Amino acid sequence: MLQWRGGRVSYRLASAGPETMESVGTNMADVVAWRRDLHAHPELGFLEYRTAALTARRLAQLGFRVRVGPEVMRAEAMLGLPAAAAIAEAQRDALAAGAPADWVARMPAGQTGVVADLARGPGPMLAFRFDMDALPVVETGTAGHRPNQHGFQSRRAGIMHACGHDGHTAIGLAVAERLAGPEARWSGRIRLIFQPAEEGGRGARPMVEAGVVEGVDFFFAGHLGCNLPSGKLAAEATGFLFSRKLDVTFTGTAAHAAMGPQQGRNALLAAASATLGLHAIARHSDGVTHVNVGRLSAGSGRNIIPELAEMQIEVRGDTEAHLNYMAERAQQIIDGAAAMQDVAVKVKLVGDTLGGTASADAVSIIAAVAPDVPGVDAVVPSWPIGGGDDATYMMRRVQANGGKAAYFILGSDIPAVHHASNFDIDEKSLQTGVDLFERIAERVLQGGGKA
Amino acid sequence: MLQWRGGRVSYRLASAGPETMESVGTNMADVVAWRRDLHAHPELGFLEYRTAALTARRLAQLGFRVRVGPEVMRAEAMLGLPAAAAIAEAQRDALAAGAPADWVARMPAGQTGVVADLARGPGPMLAFRFDMDALPVVETGTAGHRPNQHGFQSRRAGIMHACGHDGHTAIGLAVAERLAGPEARWSGRIRLIFQPAEEGGRGARPMVEAGVVEGVDFFFAGHLGCNLPSGKLAAEATGFLFSRKLDVTFTGTAAHAAMGPQQGRNALLAAASATLGLHAIARHSDGVTHVNVGRLSAGSGRNIIPELAEMQIEVRGDTEAHLNYMAERAQQIIDGAAAMQDVAVKVKLVGDTLGGTASADAVSIIAAVAPDVPGVDAVVPSWPIGGGDDATYMMRRVQANGGKAAYFILGSDIPAVHHASNFDIDEKSLQTGVDLFERIAERVLQGGGKA
Amino acid sequence: MLQWRGGRVSYRLASAGPETMESVGTNMADVVAWRRDLHAHPELGFLEYRTAALTARRLAQLGFRVRVGPEVMRAEAMLGLPAAAAIAEAQRDALAAGAPADWVARMPAGQTGVVADLARGPGPMLAFRFDMDALPVVETGTAGHRPNQHGFQSRRAGIMHACGHDGHTAIGLAVAERLAGPEARWSGRIRLIFQPAEEGGRGARPMVEAGVVEGVDFFFAGHLGCNLPSGKLAAEATGFLFSRKLDVTFTGTAAHAAMGPQQGRNALLAAASATLGLHAIARHSDGVTHVNVGRLSAGSGRNIIPELAEMQIEVRGDTEAHLNYMAERAQQIIDGAAAMQDVAVKVKLVGDTLGGTASADAVSIIAAVAPDVPGVDAVVPSWPIGGGDDATYMMRRVQANGGKAAYFILGSDIPAVHHASNFDIDEKSLQTGVDLFERIAERVLQGGGKA
Amino acid sequence: MLQWRGGRVSYRLASAGPETMESVGTNMADVVAWRRDLHAHPELGFLEYRTAALTARRLAQLGFRVRVGPEVMRAEAMLGLPAAAAIAEAQRDALAAGAPADWVARMPAGQTGVVADLARGPGPMLAFRFDMDALPVVETGTAGHRPNQHGFQSRRAGIMHACGHDGHTAIGLAVAERLAGPEARWSGRIRLIFQPAEEGGRGARPMVEAGVVEGVDFFFAGHLGCNLPSGKLAAEATGFLFSRKLDVTFTGTAAHAAMGPQQGRNALLAAASATLGLHAIARHSDGVTHVNVGRLSAGSGRNIIPELAEMQIEVRGDTEAHLNYMAERAQQIIDGAAAMQDVAVKVKLVGDTLGGTASADAVSIIAAVAPDVPGVDAVVPSWPIGGGDDATYMMRRVQANGGKAAYFILGSDIPAVHHASNFDIDEKSLQTGVDLFERIAERVLQGGGKA
Repeated sequence: MLQWRGGRVSYRLASAGPETMESVGTNMADVVAWRRDLHAHPELGFLEYRTAALTARRLAQLGFRVRVGPEVMRAEAMLGLPAAAAIAEAQRDALAAGAPADWVARMPAGQTGVVADLARGPGPMLAFRFDMDALPVVETGTAGHRPNQHGFQSRRAGIMHACGHDGHTAIGLAVAERLAGPEARWSGRIRLIFQPAEEGGRGARPMVEAGVVEGVDFFFAGHLGCNLPSGKLAAEATGFLFSRKLDVTFTGTAAHAAMGPQQGRNALLAAASATLGLHAIARHSDGVTHVNVGRLSAGSGRNIIPELAEMQIEVRGDTEAHLNYMAERAQQIIDGAAAMQDVAVKVKLVGDTLGGTASADAVSIIAAVAPDVPGVDAVVPSWPIGGGDDATYMMRRVQANGGKAAYFILGSDIPAVHHASNFDIDEKSLQTGVDLFERIAERVLQGGGKA
Repeated sequence: MLQWRGGRVSYRLASAGPETMESVGTNMADVVAWRRDLHAHPELGFLEYRTAALTARRLAQLGFRVRVGPEVMRAEAMLGLPAAAAIAEAQRDALAAGAPADWVARMPAGQTGVVADLARGPGPMLAFRFDMDALPVVETGTAGHRPNQHGFQSRRAGIMHACGHDGHTAIGLAVAERLAGPEARWSGRIRLIFQPAEEGGRGARPMVEAGVVEGVDFFFAGHLGCNLPSGKLAAEATGFLFSRKLDVTFTGTAAHAAMGPQQGRNALLAAASATLGLHAIARHSDGVTHVNVGRLSAGSGRNIIPELAEMQIEVRGDTEAHLNYMAERAQQIIDGAAAMQDVAVKVKLVGDTLGGTASADAVSIIAAVAPDVPGVDAVVPSWPIGGGDDATYMMRRVQANGGKAAYFILGSDIPAVHHASNFDIDEKSLQTGVDLFERIAERVLQGGGKA
Repeated sequence: MLQWRGGRVSYRLASAGPETMESVGTNMADVVAWRRDLHAHPELGFLEYRTAALTARRLAQLGFRVRVGPEVMRAEAMLGLPAAAAIAEAQRDALAAGAPADWVARMPAGQTGVVADLARGPGPMLAFRFDMDALPVVETGTAGHRPNQHGFQSRRAGIMHACGHDGHTAIGLAVAERLAGPEARWSGRIRLIFQPAEEGGRGARPMVEAGVVEGVDFFFAGHLGCNLPSGKLAAEATGFLFSRKLDVTFTGTAAHAAMGPQQGRNALLAAASATLGLHAIARHSDGVTHVNVGRLSAGSGRNIIPELAEMQIEVRGDTEAHLNYMAERAQQIIDGAAAMQDVAVKVKLVGDTLGGTASADAVSIIAAVAPDVPGVDAVVPSWPIGGGDDATYMMRRVQANGGKAAYFILGSDIPAVHHASNFDIDEKSLQTGVDLFERIAERVLQGGGKA
Repeated sequence: MLQWRGGRVSYRLASAGPETMESVGTNMADVVAWRRDLHAHPELGFLEYRTAALTARRLAQLGFRVRVGPEVMRAEAMLGLPAAAAIAEAQRDALAAGAPADWVARMPAGQTGVVADLARGPGPMLAFRFDMDALPVVETGTAGHRPNQHGFQSRRAGIMHACGHDGHTAIGLAVAERLAGPEARWSGRIRLIFQPAEEGGRGARPMVEAGVVEGVDFFFAGHLGCNLPSGKLAAEATGFLFSRKLDVTFTGTAAHAAMGPQQGRNALLAAASATLGLHAIARHSDGVTHVNVGRLSAGSGRNIIPELAEMQIEVRGDTEAHLNYMAERAQQIIDGAAAMQDVAVKVKLVGDTLGGTASADAVSIIAAVAPDVPGVDAVVPSWPIGGGDDATYMMRRVQANGGKAAYFILGSDIPAVHHASNFDIDEKSLQTGVDLFERIAERVLQGGGKA
């Protein structure tokens, strides 16, 4: 059980009661302990009830004005929302694992975003974004995997923080504590945005459409890892990919596989052809394009021609044109595969991300403070993020409103690629992340008359 | 609620309490009501706890000596046994739906077979087999589907009696009542075998290996439907296929689909190639062969290279040689597909069926009594069963021991092929089935000195 | 060089001049020598210029009235006709290999059918059909292959008599000699039909539409081999399959495979998907169905996205309904595969065969004479032909006109399946075939008042 | 007919005799006329007999010391050599189309490279490389295609200059004329290398291994087009891909598709699975990778299970590691696909290219002279070549020996991507190319004391 109140935080597995993230009053929290607690309790996108509720309570305790639920997430803009039953189950699980009921109650229908504001004197508005969601990955049982060594491996079968968002949220909590503290030197307004459902590119849009980045003058977000080693900081992440997430449902006709297969129309065969066809799309020679069929579930029984096949796919491109090329070809392949097997098909958009480019002024700020951040040995101008992050929705809106936005990559040695079952981060980089955000805040918000 | 005690049985959906099959004492049961109750409560193979426990209690009430559990099912011979958690859940569901707890308790570990014996005077031993399991099919919601019209559609989401075994069990219960009644004219021994898990070819073998057909002189089983119209009876089913049921698991390596797909090894691509390859096996020109991939589940998330893919397949052949041809080719395709994608693969045998041929003497008995059975308008010498039935395990053992065995097909108009989501039987054929079994018993067991 | 004139025929490879089939006057020909000469000079369908011209000349020498060319083949009904250049080349090759120029000249545009009539006194008209074409198979070079041992292997690279039609034609020539001889005992009319292009189901229809079986009272055809051993005769071949032969052309867009693959539309990917999809069509459970993609040629260069892909396919079924099922599914798969890859597709019918059933009266004749044929040890009532033969076009027309038709299978030990590169026949069965046809003629045509 | 002697060259289609490239004595040749003549007579790699022989004669006429055949191409290093019959046919065709017999005779066994040397006073050795081969592309018949408008479309069915090498060779011939002329201002040694078989990455290696770039101090090569517009010059081409060209042969077992398909082992199914699998290889996220199956030829006849399937494929990568990744995965897919269908497979390396980087000094020379080249409106520092060019073999050897090498891209408006059937170049860029090479020569070879 994580003890966050009255003294140094330590993470103990042998706790009798339900684990919970708790306030440590004015003492500095141990960002590692928070990260481990979150790692042990991973939650999928739009279902981060424990993470969000504990975070909201903590931020309120620190003095932030905290908003959650519909006020910070526009329901109509939430793509790929889990079913009501899954949301109800996630709420129950969160409560059982120590989430405060009052905050959970304020987050209906998967609206697990948290926005916390703090103001001190005159100055611009600075926003930081942290993402909270985990992935449907079965965490490895290998003894050498650090979470196993230290007992903070996932307690949710089939769900894992395999992309470092546990670290991001822990950093965000520690940054909040720092900035809310009496020694913090800044003047202006600070907004901390804890975003759900970054995976699948679903959480940023409803927050943007609820207005959470309106009025923001400076916006920063970042990511741990991304194949950049510990000690290095990239002042600018490049290669944000445009992406589209699609759910594909083939519907055929079931039949007995021996007594009348000819009366069936095989949805699985359509999905298998589509899967091969999708991966075989000619990649664009002028840039970066990707396609993946990440999930396929088809058929009901061994001796029945599969009537239903459901696929979860995504296409990506480094430009909107390249994304459109992939999306158009994907649609043709899916439609053609359905036609081959004489089955019906539906394609539903359930998420997307946009490309994005940092504002030079904001990148300069990162580059300027970086040398003073303990743990940063070297600054590289830019580094490819390699995937996407729907933080670009926020960046684009901030920039469209005249603000400045940037996205850095904080190096962290990782033993395996992101999303792998043995992914882990170098926990030393957590403290570096906290310091970096603090320095950025001081720089942007002028040190509260200090300097 | 089905009222089986004290009066004419009727099936009422508006019951307040849990539905249950109950004894009607010595009054004749309404086989249609039983069938509808069973149809509303379908259970998958080795999980037929409600069906088996209610059946066992009913047979005991009628005076049969009833055996269940390990005594009638050899655990070592049970292929494709569901996980312990699934068994526990099925037991809970059965109890909640009115299954008698004492009988459920006597059926550990999926051993849901029921064997009931009754003896009257000297004579041979006659055995009838009835199968009880349902299928993982989502029942259609179409208004015109009779179960929907009359409110006895499946109450278990995703499970359906789509092959008529509800009718078979109902017939068996009514036959038991008839033969146990005071007017029944027979001398000798009667054994009623209620078999689980016919689908997948899993239930007969453990019963045979537990000895349930040892000592049987005459053995009869049958099937409703099979594209034979109502009013017709085929004295012999032909075309029992040899089959093998296999679970295939491909295990690759997960990776982020955009940040490092080259580090992944895609289990879904292996499964998709295997699926197409399996269906494309050249069918044998000298007989009947089939292959089906009935289930495929792969991958965990949209942006993750799928690490795991699980397939449920079956191969069939009209001879052991043809089955072996299909099985050998299937193995090559599965191994090759795994090699293509550099993933590991495991193939596990989870069920099988054998071909079989009826004993001419037993077929003659059916043909002889058929004209006297009300509802039988025409007798055809033989009819293809089109699939398989592991009753052949019992037939072969009976024949090996010197007994006689036969398998008939009782015509029943069906609106859709077996295993389809809108499959249904013509309920008029249920009574015909009861009468047919009774006549066979009278014929084999000499009418108890009456004649 | 084959010496057919003035003495016993023998086949010599060491000949200085061009080989040729020559008359042996009234002496009995050696059917084995003829077969070997034909085996060494295989010709594809509608290109059998050497075979047909030598046959025509031989029959004319024997006194038959011989018709060839447009008179016996209706041009409009010739599906799958080779290109004009291929026909011209075949004519040149035939002339170079000893074909008589006058007969070649009378067979324009692939019209290589030969019909020979002989009449003696009153009586019905009896027709025999023999097919002449070879296959695009590369003959094995294995030393143990009899044609290699005896030096009569194919002299045409990539073409081979791999289905025994060399034997059929040789039998036909020997039968002609017998029936034209002075000792032959028959009265009535005899018509010998030498048909081109049986493979692909193309040659019979244009002959039927040219009227060659009009007026025929009795029609007989047969096949060597078909997995029936030497010494056995099946009085009736069963299982004639309906079939359709299709040429499929996918047309996409070429592009540089590295500089702009996205601008290409890949015809080969469409064909590969279609190939897998076609082989994966669910075979009909009520009968026999087949599909094959026998040829695929696609693309032009290694670094070019393939613009063109051409497939030769066939579908078969034991009933017209089953054929239609396969053809309809094939069309869907082809269209869908084209749509997947955004390429155009054309499907062209280039051949077909019909099912057929023998006339009981004609079968009886075969069964009646069989015991008297030397070399026939056993008669089986029927035997599956396993494929198709467009002789059924002729049988159906004869039957429609009130005539009787039958098709037998003459056993012949074969070391490999039909169409395999090491196919061969047991040459002993050739003489048996000659005797069988002669006995049939005597039986049908009453022995010329002899008996 | 192209008149190269005695006056201004003009290309006339209405010529009575065979077309030929002829000397124009000391007059300046029309590079457009040469290009059109070459375009009309395209020749595949290692078969450029007409092009090479006419080029060799022309260069000799101009006073160059010309070497051809084994002296400039090491036989052992020639991958993907066409069959002897194809070489003989190409020689015949070349002679028939005006190639000088004496030069053809000196180029045995596909050794169609031409190396021409000229020396004037002291100075370094400068080498230029021009490639000569065409592609197996069917040229479009569209009226709007300029070669069709002006009557210089390909006269070789199925072969086309679809990558601009006709232009490269024409430029080389004009450059030779310029540099051999009396007004040419240079001192040192000039070597012109006319390379065969650039497509497929086959021609450079045997020339390098025969020593043709030993002693070279400066080396330049270039390419027209590559999506760079007319008027632009890229001083450095980037993105040379490492590549490997493979011929894959699957060998199964033929069988009759209806009578015994189960006895066949289907090589086409293996190839179809491999084709889909190859295109579906996960592209490397850290760079550029490509794969293509450019040719597939399989099967012999419609009703025969295909015994043989031959594929021509290539894999590419921007680093040796990325190429190795693709090659390793390709091998796994090919082996696995063969295993799936129980067929044998052979993979043969028939060509490869290496990546390469220009020498900064050599790039500077291009950049320095570019502004003075008429027709060059703008110089861009670098431009991606998008594919590969085995000129990198020469570049690497020159650099390894201490020399300097560069490769430029000369913009030329193209109506379609390279290798497309309607590819064409902007002929205005030909003269620009000639001027550019001349300026480079003057710069490197100091203007012969002029300046």
